[in-house]
Order: sequence, then structure tokens, then C-alpha cells
Amino acid sequence: MKDLLFCVAAVTCMSISCAHSEEPTRLSAEALAIAVQLREQALEDSTAYDFVAGLTTEIGPRLAGGDNDLRAREWVIARFKALGFDRVWTEPVSYAKWVRRGESAAIVAPYPARLAVSALGGSPGTAKGGLRGTIVKFDDFKALQAADAASVKGKIVYIAYRLRAARDGSGYAPASAGRTNGPALAAKLGAKALVLRSAGSDSNRLPHTGVTEFEPGGAKIPAAALSNPDADLLERMLAGGKPVTLQLDLDCGTEGTYTGANVIGQVTGSERPDEVIAIGGHLDSWDPGTGAIDDGAGVAIAAGAGHLISALAQKPRRSVRIIAFANEESGDIGGIAYAVAHKADVGAHILGAESDFGAGRIWRLSSQVKPEALGAIDQMMQVLAPLGIERGHNGHAEGGDFDSMGSAGMALLELNQDGTHYFDWHHTANDTLDKIDAKDLNQNVAAYAAFAYLAAQADGTFGSAPGAVFAPPPATAGQ
Amino acid sequence: MKDLLFCVAAVTCMSISCAHSEEPTRLSAEALAIAVQLREQALEDSTAYDFVAGLTTEIGPRLAGGDNDLRAREWVIARFKALGFDRVWTEPVSYAKWVRRGESAAIVAPYPARLAVSALGGSPGTAKGGLRGTIVKFDDFKALQAADAASVKGKIVYIAYRLRAARDGSGYAPASAGRTNGPALAAKLGAKALVLRSAGSDSNRLPHTGVTEFEPGGAKIPAAALSNPDADLLERMLAGGKPVTLQLDLDCGTEGTYTGANVIGQVTGSERPDEVIAIGGHLDSWDPGTGAIDDGAGVAIAAGAGHLISALAQKPRRSVRIIAFANEESGDIGGIAYAVAHKADVGAHILGAESDFGAGRIWRLSSQVKPEALGAIDQMMQVLAPLGIERGHNGHAEGGDFDSMGSAGMALLELNQDGTHYFDWHHTANDTLDKIDAKDLNQNVAAYAAFAYLAAQADGTFGSAPGAVFAPPPATAGQ
Repeated sequence: MKDLLFCVAAVTCMSISCAHSEEPTRLSAEALAIAVQLREQALEDSTAYDFVAGLTTEIGPRLAGGDNDLRAREWVIARFKALGFDRVWTEPVSYAKWVRRGESAAIVAPYPARLAVSALGGSPGTAKGGLRGTIVKFDDFKALQAADAASVKGKIVYIAYRLRAARDGSGYAPASAGRTNGPALAAKLGAKALVLRSAGSDSNRLPHTGVTEFEPGGAKIPAAALSNPDADLLERMLAGGKPVTLQLDLDCGTEGTYTGANVIGQVTGSERPDEVIAIGGHLDSWDPGTGAIDDGAGVAIAAGAGHLISALAQKPRRSVRIIAFANEESGDIGGIAYAVAHKADVGAHILGAESDFGAGRIWRLSSQVKPEALGAIDQMMQVLAPLGIERGHNGHAEGGDFDSMGSAGMALLELNQDGTHYFDWHHTANDTLDKIDAKDLNQNVAAYAAFAYLAAQADGTFGSAPGAVFAPPPATAGQ
Repeated sequence: MKDLLFCVAAVTCMSISCAHSEEPTRLSAEALAIAVQLREQALEDSTAYDFVAGLTTEIGPRLAGGDNDLRAREWVIARFKALGFDRVWTEPVSYAKWVRRGESAAIVAPYPARLAVSALGGSPGTAKGGLRGTIVKFDDFKALQAADAASVKGKIVYIAYRLRAARDGSGYAPASAGRTNGPALAAKLGAKALVLRSAGSDSNRLPHTGVTEFEPGGAKIPAAALSNPDADLLERMLAGGKPVTLQLDLDCGTEGTYTGANVIGQVTGSERPDEVIAIGGHLDSWDPGTGAIDDGAGVAIAAGAGHLISALAQKPRRSVRIIAFANEESGDIGGIAYAVAHKADVGAHILGAESDFGAGRIWRLSSQVKPEALGAIDQMMQVLAPLGIERGHNGHAEGGDFDSMGSAGMALLELNQDGTHYFDWHHTANDTLDKIDAKDLNQNVAAYAAFAYLAAQADGTFGSAPGAVFAPPPATAGQ
């Protein structure tokens, strides 16, 4: 989710990228040699795989605020300590707690059929006994935006858009738009409920859940995703020309406030302990699966990288901080909380990256750094290129849970993973350990270990400063 | 399922394959030319795809004896008439009715986890409140056969065998052995229940159901399949060395007797109406999916082939009979009923084949015909080879629902479909229309239309006779 919290501050401050008189940031030959050694160690190390295997086996699903939330945090705290992080602590994160108790959907007419359905996170439940209505179909979210209220009022909106698989995940934004924003819009237009084709590239009877966003005080309607084969079935009936009646029963909703926490482990720097290289993933997951690729893998990659750095003969100059964020899934809640707590120290957050796109191999590195640091990024690429990683652009980088810190002026890297199959499993019951290839996971660990260590050792910074402006996010950025 | 009903009769009768004085069976040039025309028409015809699309859209799941059983039969009767079959009738099929009302499973210790589970067809339910027990693991059915009762008594048996995907489906027999025969054996050994890794080659959280067989009057225990990722999870916990406790709740069981029916359509022959070429599939399906590949496709292929033959300018010499069998899934019940009703006419059942292995392309044709008919099969191959079909063996052919007729002396063909992906979806909620490629389906229709027509026109027979013995089934034949 894009976060605009700090934009006003950012544009009113002097951009660090204009301070051209600075010395170029450099990496020493010694640091590069140790980074190569870390890279090679990472490819043979089982820490990250053991981490995500343990987390998905011993804890499982980690719905933010759910039964496993505290258990998962305690598990990560213990594991971070065992991995050699010299400081491990938590920082509170509070949010409205959403719960899922049950859900079902069925076509009533013209031909009865039970459907595989998942309530969207944030959806209210239906009244007891469910609701029933006639389907009105829209090809995509844009078509719903162009609809008049008369065509929608009292009906169940159906959005048919199918996600296209792509290595760079570019198919997700147009598919998730209907999920994130469709229900609020349909509610405004007077719809009774909304169902959509899952934002997924698979053909399994496993619907893809995910968050939907309503405006505070705005109208809310129940909203759910159908699996792709169920969406196909619905569309075949609609194509037959007879009205299609759907029965929807969702037992879910928001229940008060919950206070969880970001879990933070640190390999404290030997020379500049207050300067931080921050890496991480998010600990929460949607509940149907066990959160292996989203985002046990991300936390595991960061933890695996941090462990290798902690085990070096000499501690890094700067601190390396490993963050397991709380409740990313409801809208980067943990990341926003981190920024609220740490934005005053944004200049000390030297460089950061979150891993939150599965466990596929990293194929590209983009950056959000000051021009004087581009030479150091080129030096990093000497270590990363043998992993099959190509250099992307410098400008805006997607930071995931670090986006709020990025908006406040933090330099970021974006290590793009191969997402060709990510949306086959994302937010479904199929998000399980078997979807992770240990060798691919280790390629990620190698990249994170190398870049985090090099940033910790760098002579000079990457441009982090209060209000630093790098480049605006592209208009097409995903949800 | 192998059926031994008629073996005693078969071995005591004279084998037709020893009557070497007969004339060779031949196909005329005119018949071969029309078969080529049928083949080419079939590749462009949408009858079969429309059939399976309609059946899965308008009816959906077709559990034998379930809510959709009668609706499905009425649908097929109407469709058979619309396709131009001049005779359409039903023949009753009675069996014990099995019902599924609900099911759940969870690991209780060492780490709580809900599991994706499906009760096996024929399983009794658990007592209200379910049952709880310690898991004892066996690598495969053979290991369970070698177990002593002391290691099993009072426990929940788990069979870990994983099905290997193969074009010829050879991975199924060792995997389904545990499902079909494991629960009866475990019950005898004193186990409390049995769960097994699904007989499936996928990695989806969708368990593969299927029949399990208990001896009449023998001990019965609740039995269910876990999805592959859930089996992985269970095995990771077992590998940790702590005892694993499972909670199993199955609300299912046998409820009296149901009388359904085989639905039969016929294109009645112009010269020898009482001689029959019999093709078909089975109409029932397991309930989690919509029975697209198992076996809506099979009925659709036969119906599509029959339709093209019915639309020829001249009716075939012999009758072509299209059979939608009842309740294959509980053990060829419809096929056995057909044999009971028709075994006296086995000699008039000139040649038969059932399609029941999905909708993949046919790659091989094996036969169970008399030696004098092998030249005619070679002639058929001239029409089938351009479809990418190679010649298999002559001897025993798997006939599916025709196996009982085969045991009684009916000549059979076995048209092997590519089953590489069949067990990804077989008996799961994923058995839906999107798994069928229309072009591959039509390749099947082309083969069935060509062979059925040629057999109907043949000068001479293929060896069907009361008690005819062709070759014994191989010892490794699947369930």
C-alpha cells in the first residue's frame, strides 16, 4: 500500500539529492571480499529454510490479531536470539482486529452450485441467514467506476478481471484494484454485496483473500473472492443470458482493537551502532494458508542474512536490523508504526529493503539512493551480478513496510524477485512450505547478506535524511 | 476395479482365440474413407465440449445417489435425444448409498494445525465429537501389510506414499492401494482410524477422495485423505520426533439403498441392429469437484462420437451404443449391472471401450481381440495414427465399466489417454471444466468415432463370445 503520511514534510524540505558537493560513497576492497564470502556461504546455509520451515510447521497461519499472533512473535523472538542477534525487542502496533469465522456462497439460479469463496479482509459479515441478490457483472474495476448507480443498486456486483502472471508482478495492480477499492465503490453505488474473481493466476478451487478498504464512516458491504474455476462457472451461467442469483453468507468482521508488535533483532555495529541497515519481512499472513511465501520467506531471508553477518569474525561497522513487521496485510500497519516511532531517526536509517514477494530468485536490483551513492551501488552489483541479478533504475524504489520510512527520506533498495508463480498461491490455502525452493531462497539470502553487509561497511551514506526526496512513485504502482 | 464375477465361467469355456479356422476380419475401403471423414469432422466439432460444459455448468457434482443423481440422468436423456440417438433408455442400478455431510481434521499436538481433509467414499463417520489418537506412520500399503497389530492397535494409521505422475497412469495403483485396502487392513489390526496422503500428484490444499472397501461384516474404521501439503506438514512434525496427536471428525456414512440407472443411447444399425459397438463413460463423479475430467469428459467423448455417426447419410450396419454408467466410483457398480443384464448377449457386443482417464490426448491403442481381427485393428490404425496414436499390445485390455463384460467374453479396445496431469485433479474440488482442452478432447472424439464406426461396418467380428478368453490381466493392474 502506498502511504502518503510524510509527503507534505518531504516536499517542503531540502532534497539531499541536490547536495552535489558530497564525496562519493565507496565500498572498500576488504568489504567487497567479505561480501563475496557471505554470498557463497549463504548459498550453502540452511538458516533461512529452517526458519520458514519451523515457522510454518510450529506456528502456521498468522492472521494479524488472531490466535497465532502472540505465539508467532514469541517464536520469532526466541529464534532471533538463537541466531545470534545481540539485541532483540518489540515495538507495539495497534489496529482494528478483523476476524473470519465462516463463509459460504452458492449460485441459487439458474443452476444451483456451491462456490469456493473467501471473505475479503476488512469485509463486514452478512446478516444471519446471509443475503441473496442478482449478479451484475463488470469486466474490471474501471468498468465499475464508469457504472451508474441505477444498474448496481440492490444487486450483487461481480468483477470478472483475471490477473495475468508476469515475472515483475505487473499483473497484480489492475487485479487487486477491484478487491481493494471495488467494495467501497459498489457500496456507494448502492450494491448489496460484491464478489470478484480472485486476484490470482492459478486454476485451483482455492480463493485468494486480501484486504479491502472502506472509507472511515463510509458505506460498507460484504465482499468476497471466488476461486478462478468458480468465477468461470459463474461467467458461463451469465453468458447463458438468464439472471444469476447468488446466496452469500459471511461470518466475519471487525472486533475492537488489538495491540501486536513488530519484532526487531539487531546485529549491533562496532563503530556506528546508531546507524542502521534495516532489512525484513512481515510476520503476519492471511489465514487460509500458512504464510510461507507471504511472508515467512521474507522474514527468513532477512534472518538468514542477519545470522551470517552476526557470525562474522568482526562485527559490521554499522548495525544490521532485522524486522518482522506486524500486520502488513491490512495496509502496512507495522511499517507505518515503525515510521511513526523512528522517522526522527530517518537519517540514521542508512539503507533498507523488505522482502515481500515470495521466494523466487532475485533478478533485478533497483535503488532509491542519492546520486553520490550510485558508484557504491555499482560496486555492490559486482557481488550481486554472479547471482543472476541485473541492475534496475535509480529513483523510486518499492519499500513495502519501509515505504513510510522511504517517504520520510530513507534510502531504499528494491530487490525484485521472480513473481511468475507468486500469484498462483498468494493469499490462498496453498501458501505452504512446499512452494519454496531452498536453493532459490538461498539466492535471496546471498543478495541480502551481501548488500546489507556492504551498506554497513560503506564509507559514506546512501542519501537518507529527514525529508529527502528521491523520485516520486510511478502512477501505475501496485496496491 | 478388477471384477472377478465371470472368471470361473470364462476359464471353463472354450476360448474363441483358439478357433483359428475363421476368416480374418476386414474393413472395406469405403468404411475406411468414411472413418477418415468422421475423424476430420470430429476435430472441428463442438458437441463433446458443449456436452461436458453443459453437464458441469447445469448439473455439477454427481455423487452416486446424491441430490444431483436424478437431475443428471434427466439431463443426459434429454441431451442424448437431442443428439439424434434413435433409442434412449435407462437400466436400473442399485447400491448402498454413501453420503458426506461434513469433515474436519486437525493436529492437536505437538503444534496445532487445521488440515485439509476428505472422507473416503464408503468410510463410516466418527462418533459425535470425533476421535483423537496418536499417529503411526507407514511408508506405503506394503509396510502396513507387514505391520504387527501391537504397533497399530488404538492408533491412527497414516500412509505416507506419494503418487508419481506418469503418462500411462502407472503411479496410481501403488498409491490407491492404501486408499482402497488400507482402512480394512488397519481396522483388522485394531487401528482407531486411518488417514493417508492423497493419491494425487499435485501440491494443492485439495485432498483427493476416492472409494475404500471394507469386507462385508468386517471391521470398519473412519478413513480420510489429506492434501499433499497437509501430509508434508504432518510428516515434518513426525520427523521432529514428538508424538503427533490427530483429531478427526467425519460426518458421513452409508444410508440405505439407492436405485439409479445407466443411461443408454443408441444409433441403431441398419443391417444388424442387435449387434452392438458399445462406448461410454461414467456419469457419476465424486462430490468435491464437478466431474469434468472424471468422467464428464468420457461420456462427452462417447456422445460426441455417437452424434457424428448418427448424422451420417447412411446409418451404420451395426448399432453404436453410448452408455453413461451409474456409480463407477464405488466399484464399477453400473458396469457390473450392465454385465448382469447383458452377459447373455456378450457375443452380440462386438467391441467396446470406455473413456475414463480424463481429457488428455490418446497416445496408444491396445486391444483385447481374437487373432483373426488383428488385421482389422491394423487397418483402424491407418485412420488413428494421424491423430498421434501408436499401436499397443493385443491381450488384456482395461475396459473400466466394460471389465465385467470383458470377463464374460467381450472384445475390448483400450485407448490410452495422456494421464500426466490427471492425478493433479482426480477426485478433488479441482475437477472442473477449465482442466479440459477442447482440442485434446476432440482428438479423443475423433478416435472414438473412427473406431466405433469401423467396428460397426466390419466384415467379421473381434472375438466376443460367451466365455471367450483373451489374456489374463497383468498382476500389476491398477485399482
